[in-house]
Amino acid sequence: MALEFAFRDEICAEALSDARLLAAMARFEAALALACAQAGLVSRADAEAIARACATATFDAAQIAREGRRAGTLAIPFVKRLTEQVAAVSSEAARWVHFGATSQDAIDTALVLCLKEAGARIQALAHRTGEAAAKLTREHRQTPTVSRTLLQPAVPVPFGWKTAVWLSMLARSLAAFRSAAREARVLQFGGAGGTLSAYGDKGDALAAALAKELDLPVAPVTWHSTRDGFARLGSEAAILAGAAGKIARDVSLLMQPEVGEAFEPHAPGRGGSSSLPHKRNPVGCLAALEAASRAPALAATLLAQLAPEHERGLGQWQGQWLTLRDLLSSTAGGLAAIAEVLEGIELDREAMRANLDRTRGLVFSEAVALRLSAALSKPEAHALTEKLCEAAAREGITLREALERDPQAARIVPAGELQRLFDPQAGYGSAAMLIERALELWRQSAKPPAR
Amino acid sequence: MALEFAFRDEICAEALSDARLLAAMARFEAALALACAQAGLVSRADAEAIARACATATFDAAQIAREGRRAGTLAIPFVKRLTEQVAAVSSEAARWVHFGATSQDAIDTALVLCLKEAGARIQALAHRTGEAAAKLTREHRQTPTVSRTLLQPAVPVPFGWKTAVWLSMLARSLAAFRSAAREARVLQFGGAGGTLSAYGDKGDALAAALAKELDLPVAPVTWHSTRDGFARLGSEAAILAGAAGKIARDVSLLMQPEVGEAFEPHAPGRGGSSSLPHKRNPVGCLAALEAASRAPALAATLLAQLAPEHERGLGQWQGQWLTLRDLLSSTAGGLAAIAEVLEGIELDREAMRANLDRTRGLVFSEAVALRLSAALSKPEAHALTEKLCEAAAREGITLREALERDPQAARIVPAGELQRLFDPQAGYGSAAMLIERALELWRQSAKPPAR
Amino acid sequence: MALEFAFRDEICAEALSDARLLAAMARFEAALALACAQAGLVSRADAEAIARACATATFDAAQIAREGRRAGTLAIPFVKRLTEQVAAVSSEAARWVHFGATSQDAIDTALVLCLKEAGARIQALAHRTGEAAAKLTREHRQTPTVSRTLLQPAVPVPFGWKTAVWLSMLARSLAAFRSAAREARVLQFGGAGGTLSAYGDKGDALAAALAKELDLPVAPVTWHSTRDGFARLGSEAAILAGAAGKIARDVSLLMQPEVGEAFEPHAPGRGGSSSLPHKRNPVGCLAALEAASRAPALAATLLAQLAPEHERGLGQWQGQWLTLRDLLSSTAGGLAAIAEVLEGIELDREAMRANLDRTRGLVFSEAVALRLSAALSKPEAHALTEKLCEAAAREGITLREALERDPQAARIVPAGELQRLFDPQAGYGSAAMLIERALELWRQSAKPPAR
Amino acid sequence: MALEFAFRDEICAEALSDARLLAAMARFEAALALACAQAGLVSRADAEAIARACATATFDAAQIAREGRRAGTLAIPFVKRLTEQVAAVSSEAARWVHFGATSQDAIDTALVLCLKEAGARIQALAHRTGEAAAKLTREHRQTPTVSRTLLQPAVPVPFGWKTAVWLSMLARSLAAFRSAAREARVLQFGGAGGTLSAYGDKGDALAAALAKELDLPVAPVTWHSTRDGFARLGSEAAILAGAAGKIARDVSLLMQPEVGEAFEPHAPGRGGSSSLPHKRNPVGCLAALEAASRAPALAATLLAQLAPEHERGLGQWQGQWLTLRDLLSSTAGGLAAIAEVLEGIELDREAMRANLDRTRGLVFSEAVALRLSAALSKPEAHALTEKLCEAAAREGITLREALERDPQAARIVPAGELQRLFDPQAGYGSAAMLIERALELWRQSAKPPAR
Repeated sequence: MALEFAFRDEICAEALSDARLLAAMARFEAALALACAQAGLVSRADAEAIARACATATFDAAQIAREGRRAGTLAIPFVKRLTEQVAAVSSEAARWVHFGATSQDAIDTALVLCLKEAGARIQALAHRTGEAAAKLTREHRQTPTVSRTLLQPAVPVPFGWKTAVWLSMLARSLAAFRSAAREARVLQFGGAGGTLSAYGDKGDALAAALAKELDLPVAPVTWHSTRDGFARLGSEAAILAGAAGKIARDVSLLMQPEVGEAFEPHAPGRGGSSSLPHKRNPVGCLAALEAASRAPALAATLLAQLAPEHERGLGQWQGQWLTLRDLLSSTAGGLAAIAEVLEGIELDREAMRANLDRTRGLVFSEAVALRLSAALSKPEAHALTEKLCEAAAREGITLREALERDPQAARIVPAGELQRLFDPQAGYGSAAMLIERALELWRQSAKPPAR
Repeated sequence: MALEFAFRDEICAEALSDARLLAAMARFEAALALACAQAGLVSRADAEAIARACATATFDAAQIAREGRRAGTLAIPFVKRLTEQVAAVSSEAARWVHFGATSQDAIDTALVLCLKEAGARIQALAHRTGEAAAKLTREHRQTPTVSRTLLQPAVPVPFGWKTAVWLSMLARSLAAFRSAAREARVLQFGGAGGTLSAYGDKGDALAAALAKELDLPVAPVTWHSTRDGFARLGSEAAILAGAAGKIARDVSLLMQPEVGEAFEPHAPGRGGSSSLPHKRNPVGCLAALEAASRAPALAATLLAQLAPEHERGLGQWQGQWLTLRDLLSSTAGGLAAIAEVLEGIELDREAMRANLDRTRGLVFSEAVALRLSAALSKPEAHALTEKLCEAAAREGITLREALERDPQAARIVPAGELQRLFDPQAGYGSAAMLIERALELWRQSAKPPAR
Repeated sequence: MALEFAFRDEICAEALSDARLLAAMARFEAALALACAQAGLVSRADAEAIARACATATFDAAQIAREGRRAGTLAIPFVKRLTEQVAAVSSEAARWVHFGATSQDAIDTALVLCLKEAGARIQALAHRTGEAAAKLTREHRQTPTVSRTLLQPAVPVPFGWKTAVWLSMLARSLAAFRSAAREARVLQFGGAGGTLSAYGDKGDALAAALAKELDLPVAPVTWHSTRDGFARLGSEAAILAGAAGKIARDVSLLMQPEVGEAFEPHAPGRGGSSSLPHKRNPVGCLAALEAASRAPALAATLLAQLAPEHERGLGQWQGQWLTLRDLLSSTAGGLAAIAEVLEGIELDREAMRANLDRTRGLVFSEAVALRLSAALSKPEAHALTEKLCEAAAREGITLREALERDPQAARIVPAGELQRLFDPQAGYGSAAMLIERALELWRQSAKPPAR
Repeated sequence: MALEFAFRDEICAEALSDARLLAAMARFEAALALACAQAGLVSRADAEAIARACATATFDAAQIAREGRRAGTLAIPFVKRLTEQVAAVSSEAARWVHFGATSQDAIDTALVLCLKEAGARIQALAHRTGEAAAKLTREHRQTPTVSRTLLQPAVPVPFGWKTAVWLSMLARSLAAFRSAAREARVLQFGGAGGTLSAYGDKGDALAAALAKELDLPVAPVTWHSTRDGFARLGSEAAILAGAAGKIARDVSLLMQPEVGEAFEPHAPGRGGSSSLPHKRNPVGCLAALEAASRAPALAATLLAQLAPEHERGLGQWQGQWLTLRDLLSSTAGGLAAIAEVLEGIELDREAMRANLDRTRGLVFSEAVALRLSAALSKPEAHALTEKLCEAAAREGITLREALERDPQAARIVPAGELQRLFDPQAGYGSAAMLIERALELWRQSAKPPAR
């Protein structure tokens, strides 16, 4: 199923691949055997024989899938194959494979082990994206461009304000994803009914030893049938996919030739068309928007699987690794694409200025209305400004010219004030301070708290 | 990614695999060349050279995915590789590969070609499921069991009534899926802007020839940016997955040992547990419920991708083959599992009868209330029946005994009527007729209309 | 909750309001009594007393909601209140209110009765939208504009082609919604376990009489626990919401001032801004896109409720009227908004032409490449065209000028051909025919089949 | 729309009602005026006149909705009506209403103000649910019941283990919801383009003053087009709805008469049937499951609205108050229902014991297999145990009897060990410790961290 990597990050997908999942299941079984030895339940020799076999065991994924379908779980054929490979070395050791554990312990813990690298990859990509956005923010603290609301020009803002807004979302969302990933990465270990019934009074010590072997925190209680951790992780992944999608939305709109303010980086093989030789398509934005359009429903699947029956549900958790694999690799794919876009983005300051000018000063309507409201009531000032805007549109002149020609308006605003009134940079409001705040927020979020 | 076949039907997944999709793209390019020859745009010799190369061309899916990621479409690297392979035979013919088509024409049509077999597989599985349900319905027209509403016993019904209800949903949903699949299977052919701009006045003839080569209907207009056909197909797939899930819900509840009325078929390697030797798990139901729990969100993804920008959108359609591949193979997986369950289901009529009896006749409360209301107002009759039910519960006697002991009730209902009043089969109402109707509905739906 | 009508169609929402639902429940109970009389189960006088009371009965929705919460169904307090009002007239008649029916019969049938008007409203709005799109299509069969793929200019097309594509989606989706609405509008009538157990052998005749009273088709079997009809209706509503969203997406992009090709109609109070006097916001598009962004998940809710337990589920169907009310009134809201937009849309043909020209002829790159490929292999022709496009971009000249200056290209294309090669209307391909097909498709879909 | 309160919590819905939203918008405008006065932008007298008018202003929600539909925002008609009411007192003050703010500032902040009480209600209900679960956990540390996996009996566990698992999910989810609610409750204040452009260099001070007036934290930067806060809040609400649904799933299954281990509290008007006098329906579970079945898709809507265009999007944020109103009041409805269930739940210890016994000791199969594996390899022990289980089933004896009769097994397990081997409480494993951990986790989560 290699074609799907056109839309997914390969590194993240590789971390969650069949081979890695099966290897992680083997790692669980090895650690379980060693922990059992430490707890005195299994001899050291047998445990080491199991651990050695686990390290080199091989599995036929297709066969395990087929048998797993009949068995209702991948773990049964997996344990069978593993036990055969242990038995080939030591029939005594084979007796202790998977001792006292349940299928879900092996599968959930294996998935959690795979999540470590997958989560790290997503965080690294979100970090790269944020760093690129921060760089743009610092560089364009003053670059005039037009803000757009409801797809219509609003007021002049620095281009760095637009990127600061992106940055604020990335800062919050990276921190929240990091936290959700950390909390989802806990050992699953409960045995048949969740109470570690097979181990008598040694369950607790065993869980601690197993967790240590696997470098995972112990969960306070098993989460066989409480899947909020994965639901939370999935939602945060969808939010990061949305953050990449938000940036992609804006860049792709700016890259419309009629707007022409920003462009994805140029590179051979990038963004051409099979029929149109002149095309330069926003392919990074495409990948990010594609991921963002699939992520919400995948996250909703995990939210819809929160009510399994009793101590282990029928159908709610078994396919969650499928959903997480799809969701996380797509999210990583979207982030990778948009990181590359932001790192190489080409901006056209002249086009930004030209688009500002093309509004014939209408983006200063707020400033004009506010200035007029010093002498008029707000509705009157709003109405007079609307009249000036209409005059500008009708006569094809600028708002400044319309103001100068209107006796009432010209009386209120002295000619000497006009230059500043129609200066984009004079209308930045608190942008400079807000930009610093976004950068500070990013600095805080980018560095994970020591723990 | 073989492990996911634990939850998907392999035949359906195979029909939508990378290899099949690439082969179908090659089939599109071959047919395009031949149609161009027919329309006089390409020489017959060149077209045949292309067609021959397409029939034997090989592709490295991983490489195409990687280059496709940069290109924004799989079709660009695909056409490049194909053109190389044609050029190895005829540099003249290579000039005409993919002539005038756009990437989306090749990808959408290839997907549609793959949908033929995938859709047929789903229909075959739904048909098997329905046939098994129809057989059960015919066999259990009279078998007494208890209906359950809000997970509480309601009134006696024949077991065949329960399966007739399943059958009615399968009948409607198979017919609707068949129709949606047929309407989604149309040629995609529009060229750069959808207007077949590359072919002058020959576009229409060319489209007809291409459609004929591929055995696909021509679409009235291209559907590059109107994806309702796939959305409809996805919704109908989710509905079929839901139908399998509905049956699985009921069977798994009946298979609880405390209920014990129905059991999945027994087979080696089926439904065991990795920790509990006594377990017989409802693994077919598990698979169907798993598929049903993922299908709604996958269908929602297609519903959320209905508003692409202009003549070809940015991110909405590119990954639809991924979503359809997942959704359709999961749906097929759920149906295959539940077909197998129904074909081999083991029923325990004695348990059904025992569960009816265990209610101590409370399932006849409607009958009693109705009988009492011949002499009392409805609220009075309802209240008296409630009183009898409480007496039965309190004293551990049957409702019939409670009725006999209650002077008011006993006065209204003569002793001679009691046998029939508390006979399950006397309370079937219109079940027999409704069962025939469901069977007739199935007969109509199971046979597709001639066309 | 009147504020939500800012985003919903009031007529559709009114058809599904509390008052209408309660009135429809009363209508069900009246019809049930009359049907019982016809079947000889209830006296004509009592039935008419019930029917008269139903026609004038009043209900306190808040009280019914509160008691319904405790009862687990709205029908229990509803029937209680209704019975009180019947009893005030005839205590004998009161005995027969809701005779033999179950809560779900009353609620589902009432919802279905309300769906008639709600569905008709949606169809009327979709029809208006389609008629407006058809008018635009006929008027702009030749108006040159640029098609845009991946938000980049592609090839020249007539503006009527863009609207023909909208029309094709509306045609299919109106027909499919009409069919789903018709199939969802069937009587729900099954009694306690779905088998009409209360009526002995008269259930069938009773159902027929009830259906006739209510002007609804009889369902082959009850659909208490098979909710595919509503799932299908919900999906088709979401698809219509998506069709409105697709049009809104395009119009709002065309209305960007940098593009300026189409504008929503101007009207007082329409599309202003609370802070910016110059703004003319695409508010119709906003409403349609808002509805389209909520519809997929609402439809997914219905798809996720397809597997209720046994003969009546716990939580899956009870709130479907809420979901349908929200989904249908939002869909109607989106359609109403976009119908108004299309009926009054203002087009700027000069801006279309200017945007075509602004590409400096790059939109003719396909035509150029095709022309060059008469003499060169396809990759060579593609490469030469790319070179010409780059030269045009670099030197700020048109593609035509670049072609004239390039010796190789100029040799292939004689000067006499250039006029036609760079004429937008010469590049329309099969647009004229495809437009006629879309209009024909609309004509067929707009008129429902006689039945 | 009162009927929907059958499925929603009225207190939470009231906190998010039209009236409260409009009042909160007025509160925003009052605070803005006072903050402007503090920043020296508006006279104290005018600000106080505005604030007084805001405190008593009345609004016609239906009219505002209708005009808001045309305007594209509720804020424009709202501000118009408010300004009229201010003008009736002071035409001078009317000049300064909504000064410099944008529609979205007023609407988002108003929603955030309403979220305070709505969020507190949800937390209170989750707290009640958790306290009830904690009480059950403490009381049933030793009560034997059977754990069930895949709807089949697994091993004996204390009933308090089942509730401890519920508790662990509630503990994590209450803490996470509290955190998400706190982070979503921040001031929205950015003006036309988000940069507070109307206020020159006073924007920052003004924001601080406004935040103080409203007792809300200042956001680092405006979140007009970054909606991750609401998406996170929505996901956490859906998770809490899922937690209630999980408990409801289990209780409703335990309440099946064939299982009969737990029952919803008895109360007049609770859980009856309109047709069946004997019914005692799990109506609290119904309400919780209904809410849980709608919440995932509503949360997905918020996740799908994360990529608005530029500085204020077209359709993504405008209806979020609708979605949040529905999602939060449904979640509260589900929690309220399940809190009531747990607070009054009736348990039947004898039924639990009887269901354990009914397995004829098969729930001890793990213990037997483990005991046998002291002498046999694991596969051998598993196979022998399976043989014993089959013998027990075939011969209708208990597993203990089967073990005693089997020579090989009887040799391994001395008769003196049998009592303990088949004692449920001896098989609790680490349950006692895990229960303490869950209680401790709850204690930590139930008390919010001081801040």
